[in-house]
Amino acid sequence: MEKIKVGIVGGTGYTGVELLRLLARHPQVQLQVITSRGEAGLPVADMFPSLRGVVDLAFSDPATIDLTQCDVVFFATPHGVAMSQAPALVAAGVKVIDLAADFRLQDAVEFEKWYKLPHSCTDILQQAVYGLTELYGEQVAQAQVIGNPGCYPTTVLLGLAPLLENGWIDYSVPIIADAKSGVSGAGRKAEVSTLFSEASDNLKAYGVAGHRHHPEILAQLKKLSGNDAVNLIFVPHLIPMIRGMLTTLHVKLNAEGSKQSLQQVYEQRYQHDYFVDVMPAGALPETRSVRGSNVLRMALYPQANDYVTIVVVQDNLVKGASGQAVQNMNLMFGLAQDTGLQVLPLLP
Amino acid sequence: MEKIKVGIVGGTGYTGVELLRLLARHPQVQLQVITSRGEAGLPVADMFPSLRGVVDLAFSDPATIDLTQCDVVFFATPHGVAMSQAPALVAAGVKVIDLAADFRLQDAVEFEKWYKLPHSCTDILQQAVYGLTELYGEQVAQAQVIGNPGCYPTTVLLGLAPLLENGWIDYSVPIIADAKSGVSGAGRKAEVSTLFSEASDNLKAYGVAGHRHHPEILAQLKKLSGNDAVNLIFVPHLIPMIRGMLTTLHVKLNAEGSKQSLQQVYEQRYQHDYFVDVMPAGALPETRSVRGSNVLRMALYPQANDYVTIVVVQDNLVKGASGQAVQNMNLMFGLAQDTGLQVLPLLP
Amino acid sequence: MEKIKVGIVGGTGYTGVELLRLLARHPQVQLQVITSRGEAGLPVADMFPSLRGVVDLAFSDPATIDLTQCDVVFFATPHGVAMSQAPALVAAGVKVIDLAADFRLQDAVEFEKWYKLPHSCTDILQQAVYGLTELYGEQVAQAQVIGNPGCYPTTVLLGLAPLLENGWIDYSVPIIADAKSGVSGAGRKAEVSTLFSEASDNLKAYGVAGHRHHPEILAQLKKLSGNDAVNLIFVPHLIPMIRGMLTTLHVKLNAEGSKQSLQQVYEQRYQHDYFVDVMPAGALPETRSVRGSNVLRMALYPQANDYVTIVVVQDNLVKGASGQAVQNMNLMFGLAQDTGLQVLPLLP
Amino acid sequence: MEKIKVGIVGGTGYTGVELLRLLARHPQVQLQVITSRGEAGLPVADMFPSLRGVVDLAFSDPATIDLTQCDVVFFATPHGVAMSQAPALVAAGVKVIDLAADFRLQDAVEFEKWYKLPHSCTDILQQAVYGLTELYGEQVAQAQVIGNPGCYPTTVLLGLAPLLENGWIDYSVPIIADAKSGVSGAGRKAEVSTLFSEASDNLKAYGVAGHRHHPEILAQLKKLSGNDAVNLIFVPHLIPMIRGMLTTLHVKLNAEGSKQSLQQVYEQRYQHDYFVDVMPAGALPETRSVRGSNVLRMALYPQANDYVTIVVVQDNLVKGASGQAVQNMNLMFGLAQDTGLQVLPLLP
Repeated sequence: MEKIKVGIVGGTGYTGVELLRLLARHPQVQLQVITSRGEAGLPVADMFPSLRGVVDLAFSDPATIDLTQCDVVFFATPHGVAMSQAPALVAAGVKVIDLAADFRLQDAVEFEKWYKLPHSCTDILQQAVYGLTELYGEQVAQAQVIGNPGCYPTTVLLGLAPLLENGWIDYSVPIIADAKSGVSGAGRKAEVSTLFSEASDNLKAYGVAGHRHHPEILAQLKKLSGNDAVNLIFVPHLIPMIRGMLTTLHVKLNAEGSKQSLQQVYEQRYQHDYFVDVMPAGALPETRSVRGSNVLRMALYPQANDYVTIVVVQDNLVKGASGQAVQNMNLMFGLAQDTGLQVLPLLP
Repeated sequence: MEKIKVGIVGGTGYTGVELLRLLARHPQVQLQVITSRGEAGLPVADMFPSLRGVVDLAFSDPATIDLTQCDVVFFATPHGVAMSQAPALVAAGVKVIDLAADFRLQDAVEFEKWYKLPHSCTDILQQAVYGLTELYGEQVAQAQVIGNPGCYPTTVLLGLAPLLENGWIDYSVPIIADAKSGVSGAGRKAEVSTLFSEASDNLKAYGVAGHRHHPEILAQLKKLSGNDAVNLIFVPHLIPMIRGMLTTLHVKLNAEGSKQSLQQVYEQRYQHDYFVDVMPAGALPETRSVRGSNVLRMALYPQANDYVTIVVVQDNLVKGASGQAVQNMNLMFGLAQDTGLQVLPLLP
Repeated sequence: MEKIKVGIVGGTGYTGVELLRLLARHPQVQLQVITSRGEAGLPVADMFPSLRGVVDLAFSDPATIDLTQCDVVFFATPHGVAMSQAPALVAAGVKVIDLAADFRLQDAVEFEKWYKLPHSCTDILQQAVYGLTELYGEQVAQAQVIGNPGCYPTTVLLGLAPLLENGWIDYSVPIIADAKSGVSGAGRKAEVSTLFSEASDNLKAYGVAGHRHHPEILAQLKKLSGNDAVNLIFVPHLIPMIRGMLTTLHVKLNAEGSKQSLQQVYEQRYQHDYFVDVMPAGALPETRSVRGSNVLRMALYPQANDYVTIVVVQDNLVKGASGQAVQNMNLMFGLAQDTGLQVLPLLP
Repeated sequence: MEKIKVGIVGGTGYTGVELLRLLARHPQVQLQVITSRGEAGLPVADMFPSLRGVVDLAFSDPATIDLTQCDVVFFATPHGVAMSQAPALVAAGVKVIDLAADFRLQDAVEFEKWYKLPHSCTDILQQAVYGLTELYGEQVAQAQVIGNPGCYPTTVLLGLAPLLENGWIDYSVPIIADAKSGVSGAGRKAEVSTLFSEASDNLKAYGVAGHRHHPEILAQLKKLSGNDAVNLIFVPHLIPMIRGMLTTLHVKLNAEGSKQSLQQVYEQRYQHDYFVDVMPAGALPETRSVRGSNVLRMALYPQANDYVTIVVVQDNLVKGASGQAVQNMNLMFGLAQDTGLQVLPLLP
């Protein structure tokens, strides 16, 4: 098979360098071009010495590069960039995987409300697929444009999917997602609040009044449950670690749900999903057990009064971003899902 | 006024050294004796060089020391030690403040169930006061024996007290306490799970199936609410930071509660409590804002459907342990609550 | 005694907030004014919640404030600010303590070379005193303008002073200062290189080709030794911790020096210096043993061939910056050196 | 080619789990057996959940297992274990790679002095090869028993080899190795000094009076230089990070050495060494640039007076231990050095 020609727009952030780490060792990929407005001309390995001797490309100026030579283009950019370039790429038959939010919310009004931008290509948005492979694998395989899920939504949706799909949640009580993310989730932007001396040895909640992942999760909860009455309390926290995300879900089961052996249900639901690990009863997932890998692990804890607590962990930059994006690419090009994604977690 | 003669039993753990830090600069205290079975004879400052030139005592062998010369004895020991020594001290008129669990649970059966020890002085237990000053200040002032609260319970109880006291919670829905603690909460014990290389850059839940602070919180919730039907889902998490605790509380208000201006209610409830800071609406408490100090801060976030989320932060070793103990001592000896406790948080 | 009226120019950085932490509890100080160009009008405690209920001031616009009402003004600003305002303050009889570099290098040519600014008040520079109290205490007491030492120079100079003053170093071999600093030394500036995700779980040397503290150290080495031939190899490293500095000094002794009992010499040299702790032979200083305090600790290790290794630790924001500045103020106003500086280290 | 049958003795420490991470994905390896005295019967993935679904072995009891079925046995054990089992394995034709110190010091007297054990198989010791591939590659390829180098020695020796081999160092001045290690270097042992709450946000020197890597480095310095007069000042420091080692070397060049273009010399010396990266002049190596990978990077900084400073970084668990061991295995079995070792560094 000929190698897939890959372009990356915006290669200087954390999802960008993570794409490079994964794609540089992907057996079916040829890295063709990486763009950066600010760093055009700079060898990639000068910015990321971890790639010295492995990635020989320099950053290209996006203004002068023709991305239609690529088979697929990843956007590791701020919101708004992918939708401005998607029409031309789609017209040229290039597949698009956006790691930002441009193609996550099917509702363009909702998109504009949360991202303060009118959506510029609603027709493409309609055809775009929400790239959570374990839930929408068949559509992903057929898609030309993928909205790669947010990191928080991935943990909530995979943690709840077996309950949602079976209709076993009591929606009269809100679902509570108490979520915790490592600092890399905030990106590689120079900001005081994510300085080492601010974020280290510290813990805080943030975005309690409204986080952009809230509408994304809610839209998917409604879709997966077929129930518009779903309520969600979502509280993200900033944890002094680089990578890793742990979401603690508190859910009330309905009469039907409370009769099930959920441990068994979950294990069966995900038995063919290479990257989802339902841990044995009593296990305690740790973020380091997935550090650097595309695996998401979860464990279930039954509570009194028909509640269940579900703890989900992932690496926010891999399964929560760039690894998921490569997993989508694999499906879109007919490869096995785990091609190039077999790197093991780094522990300790 | 003559200085208070203070003894500390078990001075080699983190609550022990934290007591030393606070008491060494307390204007009304004379440190009389510090015991350690394992380290008798060792100068305290050899183990804790932060105290060089300030604490000149050496550790004493508990077998040879007469603690009845003290006015008050703090127990910074494992569970079971304080109750074995309390009868003799009480008989001699010495006040006792136990930082472990011996005098926290009024119900001796419950104590034995969770701590696997029969309670050896249930008569003293009956008279002991739960030393959460902001809730039981008057009883503390009169007490001879104090059960110093656990760190998690302090955050949950102070976070909910205004609602509990007014009867504004809908108890048909469980209270959810999603709690996060720095690693010092596990103590200064040589264990693999709290090694730097295990706990750093990592995040996990623990004790989901049953944590010893659960019955302590529940007993107090019932007492403060006067309602035995209270339910609690309590999930503690281990955070890669030394000190600090943040608890996220999710509560459903009842009809009465949902009519209140909670921000105002909370501010009034705690207006005379020097160490409780109700932050303005929209504020985001951080653990570092209380690092090393006895202050506990909280903020309220109203949610849809009559839910409210309350975020509470404290330093687990100060307001969650040794600082609270000193605050209790101050009340018991007629001093202002903040005597010796005015040290400011260390930020950054 | 009437309280000292204090002004702080540039209160939004780490040395600024550290000055506030120390001065807010200083028994002889009245905080009069704190300026910030960018944050004028903002309550200080909104930016630094650790000071809620303690510091009631808001930041003032430096353009509208009259600092001559103060008895002393601290400059916690970038280089160049203090020298622009010092002439007016000095003329008004106000004392000046600059925590930046404007008054550290007596040689104005050297200053311009390293800081890329011509010095604008060389007359004041001539009278300014290098505020390392343990070396220049008498001059500090008489000074009107203080150049507060850099953090690295403080560790090198106090670590070597007994050898320099006695002429016991073999200057034919360079002094090697292998220095390590916590990230707060880089200040509270939004920069990618000091983001949590960049600086955490990482270690690097920096400024090997030329760090601004090199000429400062060298000038003092020459002055203290009376020897212009001193050579210095200075390599700073960035350590993933917030506060703390550890400098490892490698020095060759001359014939005279190699005959001395250095442990004894050092202990005697610093016996009256409250903030310098010469630890016993064999001790291993840790940065956390001084975290948050103004104490600097050191230990000596004799090596073969007449070499000696000296390890020095301090909190870079206290003895290495703001604590040293307050210590200078105390001397300048006739107070005991440790007034307001008795806060104990935070361990753990 | 048939796969190499691999045994690991002592699989529960950090070098053990690191061997598992690397070997589980090694295309030419079949993991045959992993022993642990304390954990026999426990599935490996229960202890190290990062290996769930990848390593299906359980720990075996070393008393009941026959290791002669293996082609090669790695010892990831405390000192003394490998030498007790090596004779039987060697007799059976099994290759041995010891990650502890049993075969590092050719001088059995020196071994006993530092490790407090008489060496029990000095004949095998004589034939054992010091497994630093870049220096002794040909002997490694022929060896039956490898003493895998210590982590600190690897950085010092590769950092100095081009100078030592050419005789360009002025040995009248001691070589200074100011070394810094992440906490995983202390192993996965339950000890107070490496608890998170002790080692985090802290920095200290240790082993200044005598570290076991000192004689190992010195023996190799003498061998590589052919000069018994070499002196070494070696000061290790403990850094609050999990993985990573940075060694700062200060060396005086002799007349010949000072004439060289060292940058060029180093680049040529290592041009065929896949895992040694001589960075361009002015570069600043960071430990995270090699996190999780087998690459060692270095940079050179010329200093005044014919001194040169060399900064070397590696991952102490990979190039400093388990990766080096796999690299040795590759050579011993005629594979390309980088087989199974192409995993890229994890950044951020």
